[in-house]
Amino acid sequence: MKVLIVYAHPEPRSLNGALKDLAVTTLEGAGHEVRVSDLYAMRWKSHLDAEDFGASAGPDRLSVVKDSGRAFTEGTQSADIAAEQAKLMWADTIVFQFPLWWYTMPAILKGWVDRVFSYRFAYGVGVHDETHYGDRFGEGTLAGKRAMLSLTIGGMEPHYSDRGINGPIDDLLFPIHHGILYYPGLTVLPPFTVFGSEWMDDDAFGPIRAQWVERLLKLEATDPIPFRRQNFGDYEIPSLRLRPGLERPGAKGFELHAE
Amino acid sequence: MKVLIVYAHPEPRSLNGALKDLAVTTLEGAGHEVRVSDLYAMRWKSHLDAEDFGASAGPDRLSVVKDSGRAFTEGTQSADIAAEQAKLMWADTIVFQFPLWWYTMPAILKGWVDRVFSYRFAYGVGVHDETHYGDRFGEGTLAGKRAMLSLTIGGMEPHYSDRGINGPIDDLLFPIHHGILYYPGLTVLPPFTVFGSEWMDDDAFGPIRAQWVERLLKLEATDPIPFRRQNFGDYEIPSLRLRPGLERPGAKGFELHAE
Repeated sequence: MKVLIVYAHPEPRSLNGALKDLAVTTLEGAGHEVRVSDLYAMRWKSHLDAEDFGASAGPDRLSVVKDSGRAFTEGTQSADIAAEQAKLMWADTIVFQFPLWWYTMPAILKGWVDRVFSYRFAYGVGVHDETHYGDRFGEGTLAGKRAMLSLTIGGMEPHYSDRGINGPIDDLLFPIHHGILYYPGLTVLPPFTVFGSEWMDDDAFGPIRAQWVERLLKLEATDPIPFRRQNFGDYEIPSLRLRPGLERPGAKGFELHAE
Repeated sequence: MKVLIVYAHPEPRSLNGALKDLAVTTLEGAGHEVRVSDLYAMRWKSHLDAEDFGASAGPDRLSVVKDSGRAFTEGTQSADIAAEQAKLMWADTIVFQFPLWWYTMPAILKGWVDRVFSYRFAYGVGVHDETHYGDRFGEGTLAGKRAMLSLTIGGMEPHYSDRGINGPIDDLLFPIHHGILYYPGLTVLPPFTVFGSEWMDDDAFGPIRAQWVERLLKLEATDPIPFRRQNFGDYEIPSLRLRPGLERPGAKGFELHAE
């Protein structure tokens, strides 16, 4: 495999740093190529603005969609954005390592998504007509590549269970899994989650290490989350509503979109 | 009212900029006090790191929880963080104006949350014992204040409907409404959502303006989302799972947590 690890934590000696380091040594030890985007170490610029689009932005009113698309097409994007897109095209597998902060990714990682996933690269790709609503959700620039989240969560697992007050972790991650990763074509593997990270000591970390190594070594054999493809009959176009009767009995909301 | 508007868009002449300006003039015209945190204009620092905690961070391994809490308690937080916390304490109503990017808020706004919502200010507040799991979800530092999201969405409303491919907009916003706003005590009002913002022209904006003014002028009379309070019998402690039988028939996931 060619693995890109996108890593977002301000402290190298953190649990997230340890999991990232373990991923590098484990994957390289198994003969894979690994590259790391260490967003804090790279001093990654988090906020999207006109500077990202170089000469393509021009003096007129900024349109994030049009200007990012033009900058991508014309090759005037910021060098840091183009470099990350190139890493994504190089990789066949992308691992995201981050702490869950306020129920989603840290700002610096969201800023990686906002800036790297530009129009014409990650969205606004493919034909839009009566039977095909763009190459997305099962098709797209990153189709054929696999992605997985590895995240630490301060709270305890029951708080994120079916009846837990925070909501089920799978539902909290759906906007990332489906909306960010699956949208531009990535195949999404089930996440690796470490609960109770605020109270993690060395004794507790031992089993976590072993579980993480096991997940990493079977990455290629892991079944993905079976999200439905957009353009192959399951959805009405252009409403993009799931056709009646396809769901499991009682299913609703996010769960409609996996088979 | 004393209204704080937290606004996140890189282009002042954008639809978001127009909605923010309209909120200011409408609310001031109705006799309310308004302050605006224009995150792009303020060049808001998006990424949380040790610099946020001043002398409280120290040379040891950074702990986001402990170091942010110590910096808050000792008064060594960055001035920009302290200023935003002071604005929150001044306000009785907080409006967030932003575009939905990749199914959640832009990185710069997430960075406002990550940095301003520090330990001992927004979480880690109150007693933890057998009957009370901290002051949160119905109690907390910001209890008694109201909050509302106002957001623009590039896609069309059916895509965000009950069977829409993106998932229902209420579910996509639950991690913000419940996890970010309700957690530290805010009362959460239903959001103001503008769909199809990518195709918005002046003709289409007319009715939107009228709807936004109407929502703003009845802010004080708007019923909030009826999220369940954590410490008043609905949840088992410490599992924080909803007690059996409290839900509406067939309800599950996020919807369990509103009455």
